[in-house]
Amino acid sequence: MKEVLAELITIGDEILYGQTLDTNAHWMSGELDEIGVRVIRRTTCGDAEEEILQALREAEQRADIILITGGLGPTSDDLTKPCLAKYFDCDIIMNKQALAELESYMTSRGRGLNKLTRLQAALPEKCEMVSNERGTACGMWFNKSGKVFISMPGVPHEMKFMMREKIIPRLMQEFELPIIYHKIVRLAGIGESWLAERIEDWENALPQNVKLAYLPTFGDLKLRLTANGTDPDAIRLEVDQLIQDLLPLIQEYVYGYDDDSLEFVIGMLLKKNNQKLALAESCTGGYVAHRITSISGSSEYFNGAIVPYQNEMKIEQLGVKPETIEKYGAVSEETVTEMVLNVRQKFNADYGLASSGIAGPGGGTPEKPVGLIWIACAWGNEIKTRKLNLTKDRDVNIQITSVALLTLLHERLVKNN
Amino acid sequence: MKEVLAELITIGDEILYGQTLDTNAHWMSGELDEIGVRVIRRTTCGDAEEEILQALREAEQRADIILITGGLGPTSDDLTKPCLAKYFDCDIIMNKQALAELESYMTSRGRGLNKLTRLQAALPEKCEMVSNERGTACGMWFNKSGKVFISMPGVPHEMKFMMREKIIPRLMQEFELPIIYHKIVRLAGIGESWLAERIEDWENALPQNVKLAYLPTFGDLKLRLTANGTDPDAIRLEVDQLIQDLLPLIQEYVYGYDDDSLEFVIGMLLKKNNQKLALAESCTGGYVAHRITSISGSSEYFNGAIVPYQNEMKIEQLGVKPETIEKYGAVSEETVTEMVLNVRQKFNADYGLASSGIAGPGGGTPEKPVGLIWIACAWGNEIKTRKLNLTKDRDVNIQITSVALLTLLHERLVKNN
Repeated sequence: MKEVLAELITIGDEILYGQTLDTNAHWMSGELDEIGVRVIRRTTCGDAEEEILQALREAEQRADIILITGGLGPTSDDLTKPCLAKYFDCDIIMNKQALAELESYMTSRGRGLNKLTRLQAALPEKCEMVSNERGTACGMWFNKSGKVFISMPGVPHEMKFMMREKIIPRLMQEFELPIIYHKIVRLAGIGESWLAERIEDWENALPQNVKLAYLPTFGDLKLRLTANGTDPDAIRLEVDQLIQDLLPLIQEYVYGYDDDSLEFVIGMLLKKNNQKLALAESCTGGYVAHRITSISGSSEYFNGAIVPYQNEMKIEQLGVKPETIEKYGAVSEETVTEMVLNVRQKFNADYGLASSGIAGPGGGTPEKPVGLIWIACAWGNEIKTRKLNLTKDRDVNIQITSVALLTLLHERLVKNN
Repeated sequence: MKEVLAELITIGDEILYGQTLDTNAHWMSGELDEIGVRVIRRTTCGDAEEEILQALREAEQRADIILITGGLGPTSDDLTKPCLAKYFDCDIIMNKQALAELESYMTSRGRGLNKLTRLQAALPEKCEMVSNERGTACGMWFNKSGKVFISMPGVPHEMKFMMREKIIPRLMQEFELPIIYHKIVRLAGIGESWLAERIEDWENALPQNVKLAYLPTFGDLKLRLTANGTDPDAIRLEVDQLIQDLLPLIQEYVYGYDDDSLEFVIGMLLKKNNQKLALAESCTGGYVAHRITSISGSSEYFNGAIVPYQNEMKIEQLGVKPETIEKYGAVSEETVTEMVLNVRQKFNADYGLASSGIAGPGGGTPEKPVGLIWIACAWGNEIKTRKLNLTKDRDVNIQITSVALLTLLHERLVKNN
């Protein structure tokens, strides 16, 4: 069976100029991968007719499916529609269905159509219109000698809905897709080189049809196995067996598989035992609370957080003793210990987490440099603290500390389970 | 003067498979833009020799500067180094300077060199080594008939440091760069179509050498003007005058320029007046606190936050009256009003913000559907509330609500200033 190949073209000067982060290509890659379409290339080009046409021509040479996002807005800098009309040699005309759906969309939001918005319903004659239930720019589907070109809006939540509901199901119908199986093992608390050394023999013995990749981010590490074959059950079994062989080498660092984030796994464990969590975040400034509450249903196990960003707030709101801060400083094992014990009690939680540190880039001293951070986890009558020596970069420090806090909690939840 | 053109090549199956989000190309685009290098294309290709070589050949045809990230790790799936050695027809040999720097880097972190890490110091013979002071994979600089190829690690904070400290200064020396001037006007509280209609006449009268783009994200909107010319002072004056003409049309929505984020501008205003902020975040779950504390120096004006993720916590920790929640529900104007007044008082702040809503996707009822969110801002003896009707998507709701809260506060800070 022939592999089905896709290319993604993202259009927009604002992306090439570095002013908008393109998250669409990333998300689309994952969706295509799941149905066995292999993305062979991603290209970003600017809002210029010749560049867009050249990218379309090149992609048509190499791929079966060409997915295009962006450049569909109502304003004058949006060129995707005229370029597609030129590429497929047709006119742009008002599409009645698109206009009706646009009117009903705007009405449901209590708004009328202005002149510019109305133009969103004009489409190249040769396309099939794809409904956009989440916005005003509809998608376009073109067929050309067995290949398909699909244009979608650049607004992420509109594109995602259209892709999931309309595009993916139709691609699965129209193409005969090969069998690829991915499995990701997720680890925290171990570096890439150390992991590689630990699993070297296992890695060298991997069969030819299985590829391994290391994907590290901020103390969080994914190991991805990719297998291809002809029998879906056989490759799934093969990969599962390889993971069974791997686990004894790395068990203590593994927290989940595939899309399981640390915060998701933690939520599952807390929910299972009907236990509650509370946070006292100083240097992480609410970021751990944000990660925990990004999980739907987190109100079942998350009682709340306090972000005491001043010493007085640590004392007044969290009950840290003034003499502790005076004697040891706000960034100390002693302070973070009182923070974690008190927040757990105040918020009536089984588990507590706390952070206090110098996130930087300012605020360091010779004794307490930027990047010095204390974290703590409390449960039952026990407490575990850790001292981190991180970077000069504020955002990196917040990210790494959040992973370290969640890892500390996860280790404990697993042991107590 | 000839324009200097750049292409970015990002290498990694993990990116094409949608498992790692590529933020490097985005950041590099912005840095190159600032020095007048025009990025004409970005390409992502997989961990496969022929694909990497093809991308290098294509980029060499079109661009003067080719920047490559990723694929420099010590593990077997990293192919950038062998591909570059093949492309430039040379061997990979141990580089003494790289080895010495690697040893000193590992020693400073209290670690030794293992076999794999040591390999990081072996480089293609024809490259100049570029020091990596933040990690173990050094960069490589190749010259070829007036064009340069630069390979950098894929770990974002390592790449960024190398780019800022080593690559950008050298590019500015070696290339004669043209004059481009960008200015971004940042707005909140107005949609793209409505803005376009409001400024239509102004937009139509823009001179030929000035381009306009609309860059919307979650209720936050950037208007970017890009001018080119021969005299830096003249184009700067020209763009500044255009913005002066524009401002009267949109003044009430403008919060800043260029890189100013809402949270940054809010911080400046609070600091200037020596005023303090406190937050009570229910449905935003700590995300606004994270945005506020992502700004270096925020401890000068941010007193803290409370995330009362249970009704009992709203009552016990924040002093909301039980009868208020019983009568009106947690998601109500009455509850969010008590939340904002109490958090301001508890945290001894001049301004308070609060959110309470149904972030979804679960938890909605016919009277209070998913996406219903109440927000409030309090200052002095006054309070302003707003009701939002948002989407079914949890992340989108959290993002939009955070912008709405920050916009509410910003409006107030400007009026009270």
